[in-house]
Formats: sequence, structure tokens, C-alpha cells
Amino acid sequence: MGYRRDELRFNGWGLSRKTFDLRGRDEEVWAFVREALAMKTLPSTPAAPLEDLALPEPRIGEDVLDALREATAPDRVHTDPFERAFHAVGKSYYDLLRIRAGALDDAPDAVVYPSSHGEVLAVLSRCADAKVAVVPFGGGSSVVGGVEARRGAEHAGLVCLDTTRMTKLLDLDPTSLTATFETGIYGPELEEVLSERGYTLGHFPQSFEFSTLGGWIAARGSGQQSNRYGAAAKQLLAAKVATPAGEWQTKPFPGSAAGPDLNAMIAGSEGVLGVITEATVKIRPLAEARDFVSFLFKGWDSGVAAVRRITQEGLPVSTLRLSDVDETHFYGRFRGALKPSKVQDAALKALGAGGYDAPCVLMVGFEGSAASVRTAWRRAFAIAAREGGLFVGRGPGNSWYENRFEMPYLRDPLMDRGVGIDTLETSTTWANVDRLYHAVGGAIREALAAHGKPGIVLTHISHTYLTGTSLYFTFLFERDLDDEVGQWRAAKEAASRAISENGGTISHHHGVGVDHAHWLGAEKGDLGIGLLAASKASVDPTGIMNPGKLIPPDA
Amino acid sequence: MGYRRDELRFNGWGLSRKTFDLRGRDEEVWAFVREALAMKTLPSTPAAPLEDLALPEPRIGEDVLDALREATAPDRVHTDPFERAFHAVGKSYYDLLRIRAGALDDAPDAVVYPSSHGEVLAVLSRCADAKVAVVPFGGGSSVVGGVEARRGAEHAGLVCLDTTRMTKLLDLDPTSLTATFETGIYGPELEEVLSERGYTLGHFPQSFEFSTLGGWIAARGSGQQSNRYGAAAKQLLAAKVATPAGEWQTKPFPGSAAGPDLNAMIAGSEGVLGVITEATVKIRPLAEARDFVSFLFKGWDSGVAAVRRITQEGLPVSTLRLSDVDETHFYGRFRGALKPSKVQDAALKALGAGGYDAPCVLMVGFEGSAASVRTAWRRAFAIAAREGGLFVGRGPGNSWYENRFEMPYLRDPLMDRGVGIDTLETSTTWANVDRLYHAVGGAIREALAAHGKPGIVLTHISHTYLTGTSLYFTFLFERDLDDEVGQWRAAKEAASRAISENGGTISHHHGVGVDHAHWLGAEKGDLGIGLLAASKASVDPTGIMNPGKLIPPDA
Repeated sequence: MGYRRDELRFNGWGLSRKTFDLRGRDEEVWAFVREALAMKTLPSTPAAPLEDLALPEPRIGEDVLDALREATAPDRVHTDPFERAFHAVGKSYYDLLRIRAGALDDAPDAVVYPSSHGEVLAVLSRCADAKVAVVPFGGGSSVVGGVEARRGAEHAGLVCLDTTRMTKLLDLDPTSLTATFETGIYGPELEEVLSERGYTLGHFPQSFEFSTLGGWIAARGSGQQSNRYGAAAKQLLAAKVATPAGEWQTKPFPGSAAGPDLNAMIAGSEGVLGVITEATVKIRPLAEARDFVSFLFKGWDSGVAAVRRITQEGLPVSTLRLSDVDETHFYGRFRGALKPSKVQDAALKALGAGGYDAPCVLMVGFEGSAASVRTAWRRAFAIAAREGGLFVGRGPGNSWYENRFEMPYLRDPLMDRGVGIDTLETSTTWANVDRLYHAVGGAIREALAAHGKPGIVLTHISHTYLTGTSLYFTFLFERDLDDEVGQWRAAKEAASRAISENGGTISHHHGVGVDHAHWLGAEKGDLGIGLLAASKASVDPTGIMNPGKLIPPDA
Repeated sequence: MGYRRDELRFNGWGLSRKTFDLRGRDEEVWAFVREALAMKTLPSTPAAPLEDLALPEPRIGEDVLDALREATAPDRVHTDPFERAFHAVGKSYYDLLRIRAGALDDAPDAVVYPSSHGEVLAVLSRCADAKVAVVPFGGGSSVVGGVEARRGAEHAGLVCLDTTRMTKLLDLDPTSLTATFETGIYGPELEEVLSERGYTLGHFPQSFEFSTLGGWIAARGSGQQSNRYGAAAKQLLAAKVATPAGEWQTKPFPGSAAGPDLNAMIAGSEGVLGVITEATVKIRPLAEARDFVSFLFKGWDSGVAAVRRITQEGLPVSTLRLSDVDETHFYGRFRGALKPSKVQDAALKALGAGGYDAPCVLMVGFEGSAASVRTAWRRAFAIAAREGGLFVGRGPGNSWYENRFEMPYLRDPLMDRGVGIDTLETSTTWANVDRLYHAVGGAIREALAAHGKPGIVLTHISHTYLTGTSLYFTFLFERDLDDEVGQWRAAKEAASRAISENGGTISHHHGVGVDHAHWLGAEKGDLGIGLLAASKASVDPTGIMNPGKLIPPDA
């Protein structure tokens, strides 16, 4: 399956032929957005076309290009503008600001597509010899600068290593419930290969359609059903990593006390140690039954309490997604603009009369045997009811489930109309949720307001654990067309500081990349960063792997 | 609670005042053992008393001792024979062979008991300055040489750092279900402190009474209820580690994508990076209900199939313990010698007539809400029945549960009578269980037979996972009194080789220590070991922490 690179947007989300479906109600939707952001008009702010993109001159010798061709094949080394632009940045708001403006800081001198672990090893070896920096690149969906083209003064060139030709299923063990894949495989192909055989990995991040197995592991991603299937790090049983120092392989033991679990050094390594080329992961039989139900709560606190109880009781739910009042309100009105309904209006009025006038919506997903889904659903209902949760049926959950990979397509048309949107996320212990929620939301609002264009902040919980939960923030704002980067930096810096100072992790599932590297120092401490840097040096002695990512520049 | 050091055996298990309770049936039990091992007589092979123990002269300056007293307190530095002998080795068979013979290779020059994280930091700093090696020591229950007194030629002395004065509960968060302890706390005290407040950690290794929280984490231990509560590495949320380079702390995020999870470098670090002084762990409310049921299977294969199905269906069991035919038979007869029963004899006869003449026993433990225990039990019953499992009530399970911490007391009287006993363990994927089970059991039997004294090998499964299971081997044999160490080495080497060559991990929950360090190289690979060594060097630049453990000597 996969995608031809030329069917994908180099400067936006997904397939070029596809846009967010406004169902012919463009006028109503944009009126709603304009009103929500208190904008007078929505200006036209289109992206620069490829031909207007200023790409830096390639700074790499023909000898290196030849070496890369030798390591792979003559037609696997690309230097054309589309390939260079496509691989210059990821999909963060900051990435889009720059590439849409036609102004990239840097771009790879060349893009190479190896088709096997051995070819990756050969590429890294040639690059190490030539002191050429290497950026590993899967789907390129990083929203934290994880695949940004960056080089140090010491590098003689910069090559992007695209893994997406490596997509084979290498082994499936139905007894042990493990599968081994090459890691350049995209989400949809991976799930198709597994589901044909009756299995699923169950990793469904919002980027699912345009991200790869290797990227999920490298960035320690979490899917929307992580409560059942676990995050990528937990799914990983063994990996093969190509490093400049050679091959590094871990083994798929179900449990071990043989020293530290080095899979944990591979998950989250973000390409700074090497390229994860093969991975053995846990799989599960396709679930027999699935259900999605929704509840309304009278406020955030009671919703959080219900989510915590459901989690700490160990109910086998697959998804728990609680939106705060602002997010519930915003998406409710957005859907209303997209698909007006008199019945819904009447229902909302009735809810208001019942005290649910500013509700928080909770979606609960169940997967498993029919019996376990039924049991879990009954118990979840009882817990929700105890916290004042009002059952509102299966509509909202099913609608979210069906459209969950469509939302990323909304950002490009927003950006075409002068609207900025970014997301960030963290996690903390249950006892600290309230403090962190208010601190981060408040910091973003204040920073945007101080910059002159107030924004709105929507928050939800989407991944829960025995001891705590994630918090996911989406913020929308009118772009300051005179200082777009400064505006974004102000909000991002304020949010990161609030997270760091209020007991949150700098990322729950987006990763570190360039954007969070500075904050990682505070989180891991000097010795932690020193240990990471020493680990990197042991497998990447010439320092060519993904420079500028993960490890703070001052380490 | 804890223990005064002088109430503990320096050369055997547990409390000096306590022995394995033979219920006055000494003659019958020893007759059974003699017969089982085909020994003509059970010779008298008592352990050397402390006064006969040859301890090497201390090789440490008075200036260092003064520095240690300054770092802690004048009465916290010990150099008397009991303290030095107690801290010279752990509790492995090889350790006991040597200390019972009165012949230790080495012993700490001094033992220091810091009482806080700050004091540990101070001790390490003084030792680093003086190039004195440090062995961190909790309960000292390692069975793989993890706390053995070892120094390199470069070390000016060897100090054992005993953590058992550090036992405070520092924090308990009932909302987030986390607790922070100093790590020198023993199992019983930790569980008492938690259960008084309504919680449990749920970590119950066989060494529970004489091992500490810090040791569980450092050695990546697993308790007997790990199916419900997780192994130590999974329970660990955050740690404070004192290293020669200073303090290293991780944070208790429930989930994070902020680079590699460095808790995974602390769990299993076996004292080579530093001393884990404080740990934040997951806790759970005390279970409302508990049940232990047993089934007999007609053979190992059907038992394994049942255990795999129960696990892969995700039933919330706390314990799954399947003994093979030999283990079921041996313990059945052992219990028969200890407590004869005509009813039992009749029942066994009836079972034989039913085709269960060489059965495997499976114990299944359930903990949780009354409802979840009931549901899980019904489903487990159905799965067991499908594999031919015969329900045999609650007696065997409850009896095992009540006596589970007594068994280690049996080794000393066996060793007093010329009988050797050792255990080792591994894990592998479900598809590979059969191969590994036969390879390891066969290798041990062959090695013992080749050495002239055939032994018996008992095997069980005790920790299961979605993708595989542990295998635990106990072997008993008549000691070759002319070459005891050679005999043990032959069996241990054969087993380790069989594990390494047949897809097992060199340890599922005992750890690496000295005994498995060589085999860790094969398991982790050169780059993995190099990464570990580089990590160690980053926090222990002078190389004083627990020399000879974990990292292979040739790394």
C-alpha cells in the first residue's frame, strides 16, 4: 500500500487530492470559526507553491551521492526540489509556518531510500566516513521538529534517510502473539496485513494514516486505544537498529531480569542512536466486540473523577476521552455548523434545563469478547452515574471514531484563512491534574493575549493510567501576520514552562525533537542527559545521527 | 520492623532461631530425600562456624574509615568478623558452598550503614576520592552473586554499603495510588506500612521476608503475584539514585514520550550505576477478595496450553503456577512424607485410574473485587476444562500460599546432609516453551550425570505474559564432596548455555550479578553492552560501583 511521495502534500497534511469535507457548508463553518475567534474577517493566507520555495544549495559532494547509490541502488538517491522540500520538515505548526512561507532554514542535500536493514547499515557507514549528518524519516508526521533538516558546523552534508521502502512482514507467531515488521510500514498497511490474518496491533494515533511503525517507536507514541493495546514502547518486544557503529539487536523475551531493558533506550530514541529497521511487537486477535458510549458531566472535576475511577478499578476499556467544557462546547458548535439538527438543538436545551448547560463529554470505548465488553460497560455506567454522568448514547462516540483520522486535514484550510492551530500534551499524576490543567491552559491564554490576539484553548484527557493521565491541549488563534513565529514561540514557551514548573512531562506522546530538547534537560536532570549523551556516543561516535534532536544542545 | 543483623544467619537463610518445620517427622522426610536422590546415606556436612571462617585481612586505611564515619556517624562503620562475613556473599548455592566451607575469596574491608540519601551520596563521594570499591547491599538475598565482595586491582579498598537503615515511608498519594519509600525497607515492613493504610505493593518474591525494595528494583525482581501487580520494574515510577557523580532523579509521570524511559536503566542496574535510595512505586487498594484453586492436567503440554489461554484472554488472575510432572510428583511425595494421609492416597489412586497418573498441577490465584474474582474463576475453570484440567479444590493452593516463604529454609538442612540444591530461571515466547523446557532440563540432568552424581530437575511456570512465560528450574543432587564447586559449575554452565542457545533470557527474575555477566554479553550484544558500559562510565567515572557485576569483564 504505502504512498507515492508525489501524491502527498509536501507542506501540509496527507493526500494532495483530499481535503477536509465541509459537506458543502463552507460558509457556515467559516462563519463559526471567525466568530469563535472574534475575527473581523478570515484573510486569505495561502501557502507558497513548490516553485516559490527557496531551497538552500545542496552542500554535498558527488562522491557521497555515489557512495549512497552504491549502498542502495542508483535510483534511490533523490535531490529534486520536491523530495528535498518534503523531507525538510515535519508537520508541526512551526514547520508549516516556515514551509508555507517558502522560507526553510535548511533542507537535506539528498534523500536516500534504502530497502533493507543491510542497506541502512551501508548508508550509515558511508555517511559516518564522510561526516555527513543523517535524519531518519518515516511518515514525517512529527509535530515537535523530530525530522527537521538540521546539521552542525562539523557536518560535511545532510542526508535524509527515508524508511518507507521497508515494509515487509517478516514473521507472525500466532502462538506467542508477536509479529516482526520492517519499520517503514505505514499504519493502514500494517493493520491490513495483520487483520487479513485475524490480528491487530491496536496502535491508532491521530497520525495513523501517515506515520510508520518505526516512527511510533522512535517517538514513543501512543494510540487512541492505548488503554487496551498499550503505547508503542509497551508494544515493542525487540528491535533491530542500524547504527553508525553497526547492528544492534534486542531480543523478544516476555520478561527478563538480565540487566536494564534496552528496548526502553530504543523507544523514544528519536533517531539519535540509529535507525530502527525491524521491530517485533505484540499483536492481539481482532476484538470480537466493540462499543462506544458517551456521557455528559456537569463539569470537568466530576468527569475526571469518573475517568480516574474507571481506570483505577482496572476496567478493560480501550478508550477514555474526556473533553473539558470549552472543547465540548467548541466541537459541539463546530458539528452544528457542519450538520445542523433541530432535534439536537432541542436536546441541548433540555440538557441545559437539567443542569448540563456547560457539560463535559466523555467517550468510553470497549473492545474484547462480547462478554467482557458487556461487563465493562455495565460497570462503567455505574461509575459514571455515581459522578453525575448522563448517558447520551452511542452517536458522539461512533461519529468521533469514524472521523478520527480526518481532523488533521482541517489545519491546512484554517491556515489558508489566517487561523493558527497547534496542540501540545503532557501527563501527570491524578492528584496533580487540576493544577497542571489550569496552569497550562492559563499560560497559553495569557501568552496569546499578551501577544495581542487572544485564542481559545480546548483540553481533553485521552490516555489514562493507574497513577495519572495525559492532558492534551489544542489552541486556536488569529495569526499575527506580522510576527507569526514570535506569536507561536510565546505560546509554546509559556506552555512548556507551565508544564515543566507544574509537575508535567514535556511530552506525553508527541516526543522531544528540536522543540522540547531544552526542556528535556530540566526533566531528566544533568546525569540523565549525560547518560543519554554517553549512550549516543557509544553507538554514534562521529555524531551524525539526527543532530539537534532529543539531547539538549548544551549537553 | 527490619532485623538486627545478629539475629540473621550469616551463612544461610533467614532468622537464626528458625528452621524448616519438619513437624517431628524428620526421619520420614530424610528417608524420602535419600531415596529420591538414590543416595546410600545422607552424610553429615555441617557449615563452618564463624570462628573458623578465614577472612582476608582488611585492606583499607584508617583515613578512609574515618571519612566513612564522618559521612555517616561514628557507630555506623563496622569491621567485625560477623558484619564482614554477613556482607561477603549473597545467598546463591555457590555463595553457600564457599561460606559454609569457611573459605571466602574476599570480604568487605568495612561495612557502612548510611541512614539517608545524603549520607549515601557522602559515602560514595569519599569512596570515589579514595578509589574504594562499593558494593550496595539490601537484604543480600541475591542468588547470582549480585552482592559478592569483589574488587579490581585498581581499588584501594572494598566497602559494603548496607541500605537497611533507610526504611521510611516518605509519601503516600491515595488519589494517584503512589507511595515513596526509602529503599532499604524489607518486604514485611513495607507491606505492613501500606496495609495499615489500606494498600499493597503486591510484590511477593520468595525472598520477600529477607529482601528490600531497593534490591527488588536493582535486580528487576518479580513477585509471585506479578500477573496482577507487575514486576518491580513495572511498579517503579521514579527513583532517586546516589551515584559517584552526584544525585540522579527520575520523575513519576504515568506516561511520557520525553525520550527514553530512564527508569528502565535504573531497574536492573544492580548497583553498578549507583545506589537507589528512594523509590516511588505504584500501590493498589488491598484486594477485597482472594481465591486459590488448583487443577490437575494429564501432562505438561495441556497444562501449558491452559496457562497460555488464561493469560492471552487477559483474565485478571494474580498467580498462575504450573508444575511439570516431576515437580508435581516430588512435592506430592515430600508433602506425603511430612503429613501422610490415607484419604490423599486413595484420591491419588483414583486419579491414576482416571488417567491422571502422572499429572501436572496448576494453581490459579485470583485477587480483586468479589465480582471480578468470581467472573475470572468461572472463565478459568472453563478454559482449564477444555484442556482436560481436573478441578481439585482449594487445598493445594492455600497450602502453597501459606507456606510460600518457608521453602528457602529447607536448603540449609539439605546442605547439612550432603544434598545440593540450586535454582535458575528464564523466559521465552510461548512458541518456544517446549524447546527451551527440554533443552535446559536435559542439559542439567546430563551435566550432573556426567559429573557422576545424577540429580533430579523440577520445573514450573510462575510468571506469564501475553507473549510468553517464565520457566523455573530447581535441581537437587548428591554433592560431590571432592569437587563441589566443579560439580555446580558444570550444571550451571550447561544450563546457561542451553538457555542462551535456545532462545531464553539468562534470567527472568534473579538478575545477572557475577554468575550471568558472561552470558549477558551474548544476550545484549556488543553494542548493548557498550551502551551499558558507557552509561556506567557517565555516572561512575572512577569505576567504583559494584565491580564485576552485570557488565561482562571483557566489555
